[in-house]
This record gives sequence, structure tokens and C-alpha cells, in this order.
Amino acid sequence: MLRTHTCGELRLSDSEKTVSLSGWVQTIRDKGGVLWIDLRDRYGITQLILEEGVSAAPLFATARTLGREFVIQAKGKVTERQAKNPNLPTGDIEVRPTELTVLNPAKLPPFLIDDETDGGDDLRMRYRYLDLRRNPVRRNLELRHQVARRTREYMDGQEFIEVETPVLIKSTPEGARDFVVPSRMNPGEFYALPQSPQTFKQLLMVSGFDRYYQIVKCFRDEDLRADRQPEFTQIDCEMSFVEQEDILNMFEGLVRHLFKSVKSIDLPEVPRMTYADAMRLYGSDKPDIRFGMPFVELTEQVQGKGFSVFDSAELVVGICATGAASYTRKQIDELTDWVKRPQIGAKGLIYARVNDDGSVKSSVDKFYSPDELAGWATAMNAQPGDLLLLLAGEANKTRKQLNELRLEMGTRLGLRNPDDYKVLWVLDFPLLEYGEEEGRWFAMHHPFTSPKPEDIPLLDTDPGAVRANAYDLVINGTEVGGGSIRIFNRDLQARMFSLLGFSDDEAKAQFGFLMDAFEFGAPPHGGIAFGFDRLCSLFGGADSIRDFIAFPKNNAGRDVMIDSPSTIANKQLDELKIKTTV
Amino acid sequence: MLRTHTCGELRLSDSEKTVSLSGWVQTIRDKGGVLWIDLRDRYGITQLILEEGVSAAPLFATARTLGREFVIQAKGKVTERQAKNPNLPTGDIEVRPTELTVLNPAKLPPFLIDDETDGGDDLRMRYRYLDLRRNPVRRNLELRHQVARRTREYMDGQEFIEVETPVLIKSTPEGARDFVVPSRMNPGEFYALPQSPQTFKQLLMVSGFDRYYQIVKCFRDEDLRADRQPEFTQIDCEMSFVEQEDILNMFEGLVRHLFKSVKSIDLPEVPRMTYADAMRLYGSDKPDIRFGMPFVELTEQVQGKGFSVFDSAELVVGICATGAASYTRKQIDELTDWVKRPQIGAKGLIYARVNDDGSVKSSVDKFYSPDELAGWATAMNAQPGDLLLLLAGEANKTRKQLNELRLEMGTRLGLRNPDDYKVLWVLDFPLLEYGEEEGRWFAMHHPFTSPKPEDIPLLDTDPGAVRANAYDLVINGTEVGGGSIRIFNRDLQARMFSLLGFSDDEAKAQFGFLMDAFEFGAPPHGGIAFGFDRLCSLFGGADSIRDFIAFPKNNAGRDVMIDSPSTIANKQLDELKIKTTV
Repeated sequence: MLRTHTCGELRLSDSEKTVSLSGWVQTIRDKGGVLWIDLRDRYGITQLILEEGVSAAPLFATARTLGREFVIQAKGKVTERQAKNPNLPTGDIEVRPTELTVLNPAKLPPFLIDDETDGGDDLRMRYRYLDLRRNPVRRNLELRHQVARRTREYMDGQEFIEVETPVLIKSTPEGARDFVVPSRMNPGEFYALPQSPQTFKQLLMVSGFDRYYQIVKCFRDEDLRADRQPEFTQIDCEMSFVEQEDILNMFEGLVRHLFKSVKSIDLPEVPRMTYADAMRLYGSDKPDIRFGMPFVELTEQVQGKGFSVFDSAELVVGICATGAASYTRKQIDELTDWVKRPQIGAKGLIYARVNDDGSVKSSVDKFYSPDELAGWATAMNAQPGDLLLLLAGEANKTRKQLNELRLEMGTRLGLRNPDDYKVLWVLDFPLLEYGEEEGRWFAMHHPFTSPKPEDIPLLDTDPGAVRANAYDLVINGTEVGGGSIRIFNRDLQARMFSLLGFSDDEAKAQFGFLMDAFEFGAPPHGGIAFGFDRLCSLFGGADSIRDFIAFPKNNAGRDVMIDSPSTIANKQLDELKIKTTV
Repeated sequence: MLRTHTCGELRLSDSEKTVSLSGWVQTIRDKGGVLWIDLRDRYGITQLILEEGVSAAPLFATARTLGREFVIQAKGKVTERQAKNPNLPTGDIEVRPTELTVLNPAKLPPFLIDDETDGGDDLRMRYRYLDLRRNPVRRNLELRHQVARRTREYMDGQEFIEVETPVLIKSTPEGARDFVVPSRMNPGEFYALPQSPQTFKQLLMVSGFDRYYQIVKCFRDEDLRADRQPEFTQIDCEMSFVEQEDILNMFEGLVRHLFKSVKSIDLPEVPRMTYADAMRLYGSDKPDIRFGMPFVELTEQVQGKGFSVFDSAELVVGICATGAASYTRKQIDELTDWVKRPQIGAKGLIYARVNDDGSVKSSVDKFYSPDELAGWATAMNAQPGDLLLLLAGEANKTRKQLNELRLEMGTRLGLRNPDDYKVLWVLDFPLLEYGEEEGRWFAMHHPFTSPKPEDIPLLDTDPGAVRANAYDLVINGTEVGGGSIRIFNRDLQARMFSLLGFSDDEAKAQFGFLMDAFEFGAPPHGGIAFGFDRLCSLFGGADSIRDFIAFPKNNAGRDVMIDSPSTIANKQLDELKIKTTV
């Protein structure tokens, strides 16, 4: 090999050894006839030292020609350093080269390759291979490797089998956002890339595989919000002969194992909350429970006092921001503007300060007596020094708005520390949601999710009230995983497709293979899938998944480094029997 | 859970326990008022027993309605069996159900779900989820999981990092067999699916990742020979600061680890053979060295005796089939027909038997004296009882033909036992091969392969003589892995593209990002990729990779179970701005 040791390996006990190192020139200092070179590789940094008049003259001359990011090989003796660097594992030693080979010179990089860089997003995406040299980015991918490794460790230990499911599958009309792949051997026909291996993992349960998992790429051709990628990775899991409780326990175990082994955190038992409670108390199906501030509904209490905004509202609901009574008028105006932005869409913000003496001062004092306002404080369990923030309007909308406001207040009050992890199960999701626009029911999770057995009679009478055996895992307000107990009976599955507006023929054409499979002895089964990119970014304490993906695409779905997608040759189109219509 | 134990778990020590089992009805025997049910799951089989008059009447009645592959749950007591079955880990006990629940009935499967099945290939592909229930198929996928697990174990232990590279990449004109994916967000443009992550893993080396691996899906849209799949899996690896020797040692270590941990085989040191020797001695770059029968060239020795077939041949070459002198005339005629088939294409077969007394009897006795024939036997190191088989003609063609004949004789003589593993490195592949039809040079491995430094001067004068630092790993005559030391210098890479007929502009448009990367400090690097499906089939002692893939496609690239590829809706085509021209 072109080295005897890595750049992170040498210690004082290696003194006097003749070694060979290879790596990148991180920095060169040239002072008073002495050259210090920091040589870097993935494993660390080792200092090389050359002295004019001591090192051979041609060697010294070569060293002086080196620049940042040159790839060199240095052979020489390990010696104890005079000025030790306690911050560096190799800081007790340096290497005095007697040979120096430039393996590859380097042009000046377009941005600084250091923990803090001067490169903008676009430039760093274009030269991703240089950005990946920086410690923080490299560490993200090392973390990702660890999370994958520890996931497999747990799953293998629980007798799960990793099975690869196909990438070239079948497009479904439901999957309007499928990427498709024209087949040269079957002209006019297309494969689709999977949005998830859902049907295949269910078939594996029908096959008796009992416990399946896969860390697997999935694909979705949709408009990319800030933090979505057209290709993303899931930890996809399925188990047979289980009920919801078994799945929650098994995967709470996985999450606990990951926190322990990757982050050295002993996670307490994961609390559980129904979807109904999550919506009522936090206006969200993925509440951030690192902080309190639950919703308090005040509708009845505040109506009938002549304040028309409240009187005409379906719902009046508030949160109590602990210790925020000191907010200035300016801060509150700014907050009011914030909730009125189109992204949030509130009509206005009512506030009430709980003063130190317990009296309450509100923005609607002319409608409410001091006693009535004190009643708000009591209802909201507020203490002197707290700030009450109320929104009013149509119930669902208002809850959504207050959710945004609650999160914003959490951030402003410093209650959302990324190193503080709060994990939560959200349970009992509705099976269906109604699409007003389309005038039909949609599966909230997917069409394979089982209704709760006790709610099956409601399928005919009140589909919206049917709860599913579906669950999400939420960490710090982010949905990290979701799953359900599946339908495993042909008739129920057919009924479900019919509810979702499939004709019998459509259901058969698309999912006939799965419904057929249910007739040959399908076991009860259920599963879950975790967003692996998101999980890694959470473990890394970061907001964006992009830096936890080696070669991400930008918001237009482009890889600007390799310049993809791109046009292809007409000959290739001809062979595939397709034409572009642009 | 719907069980307290699996069907493979209960032992005599569990006697008298009340347990709950779930699984599939494998068989039912009903004899003299006693019902025996073999209940099966992934982990094993447990016998249930019900007796008329002893078991509750409704329970017994239910049990009588069960059919093969019904999914049931049985609760009851574990008891010692009267007639123990020593072939079954659970054979000492049986369970006497007091409750029996049919979780899902099953239609009669279209073929027998047993180790030996009556289902044909097509039927089994269509109902793959039922075929996967059979032990031999399930075991193949369990083996695959083991091979993946042990691979990661070794690679992780050697400080390799698994990094996911993108699946949506860029099409290249070289990649006429790329699958392409139209981009909805970038109309008229296409992604391509990777035939290998080659350029990305090289960029990771430029990024300083030092040691990368990935078990990764790759794609090739080509006519499928009997044992190819449009999507296949590779163990893809790359290392920095290495020479060929380092790579051979590292991955010999991997192969040894896999043989030891998966097959309990202590693999001896892997022998090495140059490409030149492999072609000369076996007429193949992937010789099966489970048996000898090396080629012996007799051209000079046999020419000039008036036998025009030999006299006009560029090469006369033979093998010595040990102990095959007893082949009858009929067998030899049949062998002659075999080599004359169009797939082989030999004009004829010359044979010579070495009799017990050492005399040689050949098919060309009228041209050669006994002494001359004895000279053949000597040259070919033949013993009494051996059969010499000779082919003649144009050198390359004849070698290929004799390779086929050698393998056939190996099979006929029982020398190719699938449980006997012989591993071989083939080294020093030519860098280039000439395409007569296209009138230009092609990269034998790929355009990123480095010529041997000492052969670089030949690039201008005799490109065909340039050897590469490229190597294949061959097991039992099958190429299982291949790799090379890569070019890491922009100028040499540009020269290579030019030799392969790329214009400067084409090279830049396709691989500019890689050549640019080489200018920012690229380390020397090299790697290897293993065909994971093939490796698994070899470990499984099977010829076909198909049964080591959960959901394979047929020879037309179709998944007949889900009926894919398929036509897609016009609306979808419109959104993608493409049209089919079928």
C-alpha cells in the first residue's frame, strides 16, 4: 500500500519508526525556514515537518511547491513534537519526511475545504466531491452508515430477514407520481419505480417469511418541497401473526437500540397519544412534545360577550406561553403579522398577559371583565408572567394555525433543542379522509390498512368515523415512521377498493395479484416504514436531509454535479419506441 | 401476538405448557378417529393431534374442515409424543388443541407446496408468493441474507463505509443499454438507472472516503440470456492509496470470510493466473480449475505429415481426458456431433486412445506412425487409459471450441461437483480489445481502468498489447467479481477517451465532472465489484440466479405475477411530455 499508517494513527509510542503516510495537504505553514504540513485523510491529521538545511535540499524545495489539497506520499521518521497539540490524537508526534512524492497536484478548490466553508449551496452542490471532504459532511455519512449498521444489528437479532424487492415494478393509476421506465423489450410498456415496496412485503408475509425488513431506495416524482428528494431511503418492515401492540413494542425496541448505540441515549418508554388527542391538544398529528403549551379550548367560555370575532367562531382555542408576558407590544404585533402571513392565514391574534399580581391584561379588555379574563388564565392553567395567545375561526383551520404558532413560540422560547429527543407514538388514525375536490374518500395511510375490527360496521354508515390500526412514530415533531395492521382478507380488501372509488375491474387489474394471494392462506400481518434520511438528520441534529445523502438532488430534481437529467440521443428514443413532445 | 411459540420451538422440556401456535396447515391425516395436523411456519413444523370423543366435538368438527395451506391458530397443551419423529426438531412432542381458530382459509394451491413440487416454471413464477413458501426457495433467500450479512460484517471490520449512491443518474451514449426515466419536472430530459455506481465510487475516493462499499441494485436493459436479470445486485467496493496487490489481498479476505462463515469451508490461498495463461491453457478468461485437462499445443509436432486439416490450421490443440479411453465409438461420434453443433462450431474432432499397453490408436492413424502418436501422448502427459481430444483451426476460435469441449468432458467425467469450490484470480487483462465491426478499440473492462504503468508507452504504438491492472475473481469457472486500478490523472483519462473514439467535447459532456474532479487532488485508487446474485447461487450450489432473487423477471424482462411492464395512462404520458410510437 501507499502507506504504512493512516493520518490518524501515530502516537508517541510510534516514535523512531519509519513510516509512510498518504493524504491531502490541509495546510502549510512556512516560517523561518521551517515548513509544517498538516496531512489529512479520513482518519485524521498528522503534522509533517521539514527544516531548511536539515531536510535534504531537493526535498525541501519540493515541499515548498505543495499547495492545499495536493495528494502526497511522505516517508520518514516519527519524532516527538516539541509543541504538542492536545486537541489532536496525533498531537504528540510529527513526521520528518526523507521522501516526498506528489501523487497528484490540485488546482485551488473553488471554496475552502474546512469545517466552516465560504462556499455557497450551489457551488458546493456542483463540486459535491469537494464538499464531501469537509469533516461535518463526511461525519454525516459516517453517522448514516452507523444508523444503517445498528438497524441491521437489531433486526437481524430479532430474526428478521432482509429481502430485496424489485425496483422495476408496475405503475398504478393511484401512483400519479410514479417515475416510469420504458421497456425496450416490451415496446409501448413501462415499468414504474416503487414509491414503497408495500405490496411485495405483504406478499412476503403471504409467503410465510414471517419477519421481513429492507433498507431500500424508494422514488416519488413530485414537486420537491425544500426537504424532499426524488429518491429516498426507507427502513421497510413487516411482521406476521401480530397485533398493533406487538409492532409498537418491536419497533420501540429498534428506536431505543438506535438511540442507545448511536447517540448513547437511554430512551424512556415512548408515550402514546391518539390521533384525536393529538389534533385536539396540538392541532397536529405529529406534535413536538419537547415542550408543553397544549391547546385549551375556550369557545363556550368566551362567547356571548359581544366580541364578534369569538362569537362567530366555530372554535376559540389558545396556548399559554410560559414566561412570555414580558413580550413587548412590538413583539406581539410582529407575532400577529406572523400568524396573518398567507402561509399561516389567521385573521388575527388575541393575547392576554398574566401580570405578576395575577391580574390579566388583554387585547380585548373592552369585551371581557377582569374576572372573565382571570377565568381564561385559570382554564389555561396560566401563572403570573405567562402570555395567553388565542386564535378563533373554523375549527380545523384554527387548530392548524395554532399548531404553527405553538411551534413558533416553542422555537422563540428556546424549547426546541435539537439535542433533546422526545419520541411519541400517535395511534388510531382515521382510516379515510374525504377529498372535497374529488368528492370521494381517500385512504389516509394507504388502501391496504385495516380498519379497527370494532369499527368495520361504520364503513357503510359513517366511513369518516372509522379508525384504523395505524400508527406513526414522531420524534421532535417530525414524522419519522408510520405503519399499520393490514387487511388480509380478499372481501374486505375489495370493499376497501370499492370505497376508494375503484371499479371491480380496476381493482383487479391493479391489485388482483394481491387479492388473489389473500385467498391462498394469508396470515394476519402488519408493518411499519421509517424515513431513513430523516432519521439520520435527526440523529445528526440537523434540519435538512440533504447533507445526509452523499449525492443529493436540488429542488428541481437535478444533480448539478453530473448535470442530470439530460436529453438523450434520438437513437435511444427510437429503440425505446418513445418520442418527447416538448 | 397470535402465538406464544413458533412452530420450530417446542421441545420435550415444554411438556404440559399451554401454548398458542399460528401457521399453515402442511398436511392432515385422518385415521381411525384421530386427526394429525402438521402446522408449518418459517421456523419449523409442529404436530397437532385431535381425537374424536376426546377433543371437544365442535373443535374436532372444525379441524375436519381444514385444508392444506389454511392459516390457523391453535391453543393447547404440549404433550410427549408416542411415536417420536427423530427427523424433526419438534418431533418429541405434539400439541393437543383446546381452541382452534381459522385465521384465513385457503383455496387449493395451483401446485404442491412441498420440497418437490409438481408446478412448472411459468405457474411458479405467476404464483411466486406460493413458490416462496417452499423450503428450498425460502432457504435460498435466507442464504442470500446470510451472504449479505457476512459481507457487511467483513467490510465494516475493515473500516469500509457503506455509502448509498444515486439510482437516478445520467445516461451515457456508451450506455446504449441504460434504462431511462423521463423527468416530469424537466420535460424532454431523462435520468438513467446505473449499470454500476462506477463514477460515483471514484468520486467518493476523490472525496477522501478511503474505503467504500455498497450492496447495490444495478440495471441493464439488454436481451436477457437464460441467466441474466434486468435488475441485479452488486457488492461494489473501492479503496484509495492502494496497488493491485492490496486489493487482491483485501478481497481474498472477503471471499475467505464468506466461505468460512456461510459454508464452513476453509479456503486455501487463492491461486493466480494471468489472462494470457488462462487463454493459452484453458481457452477462457474464467477457467474452471476444479479439474485439470489443460490445453497442450501440438501444431508443430503434427504438421507436415500430409493431414490437411492439421497442415492448414493455425493451431492444433488438445486435451487429455483422464480415463476416457474406454469411450465407445458411439460415444466419440456423439461427442463429434456435439462439437460440430452451431453453438460450438468445430469442423471435426480428432481423437486418440492410449491403450493399456501404451500404444496409441487414433482416428488419423493413416497419417501418423505409432511413434508419432506416442509422441502426442508424451507431449500431453497422457497415461494408459486416457483419451486425447484434438481440435484444429484458427487459433482464437479453436481455443474457444476446446474450452467448451473441456468443460463438457469435465461434466461427463463427473469432475465438476458443485460442492467442490475452486477459486482463482485471473490477472493482467488486456486494456483494450478491437471491435472489427466498428473499426475501433473498446475498453475491455471500462474506460476508467488504468493501463499498467510500464505498458503506457505502448498506447501509441500497439494498443492491443497494453495490459491493464485489471483482475477477475473466478469460482468454478464463473466470473464472480472483477475490478481494476483506476486512472486518476486527467490527461491519461482524456487520452483513454480519445483512444476509445470520444471527441474532446463528447468526453467532456459525459465525464467532464470526473475529469474535473481528478484535478482537485484525486488519490490513487482501485476497486472491485462482485455479482451478488451469482455469488449466492454458487454458495447455494445452483446454476441459476433466479431462485436466489425473491421476485425475478422472466426472459422477456416481465414480472408475470404483477404483470409488469404494462401500458400507462395517456394522462401520465402527457404529464411526462412523452408519447409512445408503437
